[in-house]
Amino acid sequence: METTPRTPRGPKVAVIGGGTGSFTILSALKYYVPGITAIVNMSDDGGSTGILRDELGVLPPGDVRQCLVALSKSDQTMRDLFNYRFEEGTFHGHSFGNLFLTALEKTTGSFAEAVETAGEILKISGRVVPVTLTDSQLVLKHPDGSATIGQHAIEESRLKTAPQLELKPTARLNFEAEAAIAGADLVVIAPGNLYASLAPTLIVPGLGDALGKTTAKIIYVANLVTKPGQTDGFKVHDYVDEIERFIGHSAIDYVIYNRRHPSKKLLDKYAQAGEYAVDYNPEVFAQAHYRAIGEDLVSDSIPQLKPAERLIPRTLIRHNSDKVARLIMQIYFS
Amino acid sequence: METTPRTPRGPKVAVIGGGTGSFTILSALKYYVPGITAIVNMSDDGGSTGILRDELGVLPPGDVRQCLVALSKSDQTMRDLFNYRFEEGTFHGHSFGNLFLTALEKTTGSFAEAVETAGEILKISGRVVPVTLTDSQLVLKHPDGSATIGQHAIEESRLKTAPQLELKPTARLNFEAEAAIAGADLVVIAPGNLYASLAPTLIVPGLGDALGKTTAKIIYVANLVTKPGQTDGFKVHDYVDEIERFIGHSAIDYVIYNRRHPSKKLLDKYAQAGEYAVDYNPEVFAQAHYRAIGEDLVSDSIPQLKPAERLIPRTLIRHNSDKVARLIMQIYFS
Repeated sequence: METTPRTPRGPKVAVIGGGTGSFTILSALKYYVPGITAIVNMSDDGGSTGILRDELGVLPPGDVRQCLVALSKSDQTMRDLFNYRFEEGTFHGHSFGNLFLTALEKTTGSFAEAVETAGEILKISGRVVPVTLTDSQLVLKHPDGSATIGQHAIEESRLKTAPQLELKPTARLNFEAEAAIAGADLVVIAPGNLYASLAPTLIVPGLGDALGKTTAKIIYVANLVTKPGQTDGFKVHDYVDEIERFIGHSAIDYVIYNRRHPSKKLLDKYAQAGEYAVDYNPEVFAQAHYRAIGEDLVSDSIPQLKPAERLIPRTLIRHNSDKVARLIMQIYFS
Repeated sequence: METTPRTPRGPKVAVIGGGTGSFTILSALKYYVPGITAIVNMSDDGGSTGILRDELGVLPPGDVRQCLVALSKSDQTMRDLFNYRFEEGTFHGHSFGNLFLTALEKTTGSFAEAVETAGEILKISGRVVPVTLTDSQLVLKHPDGSATIGQHAIEESRLKTAPQLELKPTARLNFEAEAAIAGADLVVIAPGNLYASLAPTLIVPGLGDALGKTTAKIIYVANLVTKPGQTDGFKVHDYVDEIERFIGHSAIDYVIYNRRHPSKKLLDKYAQAGEYAVDYNPEVFAQAHYRAIGEDLVSDSIPQLKPAERLIPRTLIRHNSDKVARLIMQIYFS
């Protein structure tokens, strides 16, 4: 009797993004699609990840860790462990999962192998693939010739014009990411920080070409709130325009956006931080090259937050992951 | 068809000791005996372990980690990971395995559960059981009423008289350790630092009683070299006498000791640090209540040492683990 290697049934989906936004998409989509490849931003240099990069010369573990946990089918103990943050002493603020990936990179000598091994331990459904294995920094070039260097610094900047971003040294597209996009039925661009999380993933040379060549339907799940100093006043189509500027061509086939605003109470809280609900313009959609699908996508459930997270009001306006996953599946079957 | 729970065949062996000495015994014995329980010292407070205890209030992971790795049947990647020590930055000197157990204790809320989970991930053969789950410190009482507190401080002390040691607060014997001794066919007391590793394990109240009640044969595997300022001039029977003083009665049935000295070159190196090969006295053995079994037990293989370890000459005189394991099995079948 001959046997062929088992491949998961159902659509092959590549999800492109950073940590938090991809987590939102992956944590629900994994129940519909066994064959997910998470293609992950590799320019993070803030917090625990930044310290590990600086001190130990490793590739950034933070966003990869979040995607691994999102796809994990292991029991809660392992997921809690991976997400655990030391709260006291020398290690204060460090995520255990970051240390895990860092120590694995050091012992195996390869970040790709570290991610693979961590995936086995976490029993992930699908795969997590760094968009690049080049140790690059995100660079924002200013019109006067000066530059802001590093994702974290750029995230904290106020922008006056549409930013010119590049990766230095030039990042090389991970061939596994390229292959996943080529073989995908759907490519989902996750919501996330436009200039400090999506852009550094999308501008990896070759990624735009890969999105041009694939026969996959390309879906963008739009952000829920604006970022002060960066995307003030942005409507859904503005995000799409900027994403396509980074991709280099009109790649998006579908946009999933939220059409019901969160409660006034929540919006007031966000307004204190200069963040506003992302609005949309039906007239622009009517003439766009993509199809825009609006739904009530804000999560009703009050998340059970750890004490440290309660201080960050923006974790309250979140996508209803399950609704987003179902819309993605509807697009696949349409 | 009825099934009964599978229990491992072969002898049930409890190995009592600290990290390094138990590692020596366990790493070979696991190939002969599937049903090993490693009963582990819990008074370590030096190095990485000491910092984690101080800063995070956890139980000491160091010795437990070494026993877990010794019993691991997972591939080299996982064992390397667990033994990995960060060499730079914030985490300098910390063992990843220690951080793993610490983070697991924090997320599960229980050191015992952390050890259990780590054992599953490392696919250990047998079990690792902390001798106590009480957060105690080793205390050395001086004749003048003063005291030296902490295993690490005691390890560094020069002793003038046979030390009076206790655990504060009083440690409670882990019932799993008690049960393992009660059900064992063999109990092995591993070699190790007499006053700072074996003693704090043996003086846990109830352990001496458990060793008195068990029908197991009790074997002590004697140290190879003396410790300056603590066991200078000790012969094999002196170690046995001190061990039985801590146990509280004449518990030892067999002593396995080395009867061929290492090379002069190695001994000279050790002598520079005040360490000498442990000698033995056949006349004392002839009248002892235990049977002494002498063999050539020094390992011939040059261990492949990491750069940091090359600085420590004493890692060169080591037990031939396999020979020791075979002697233990011969005692079982005798």
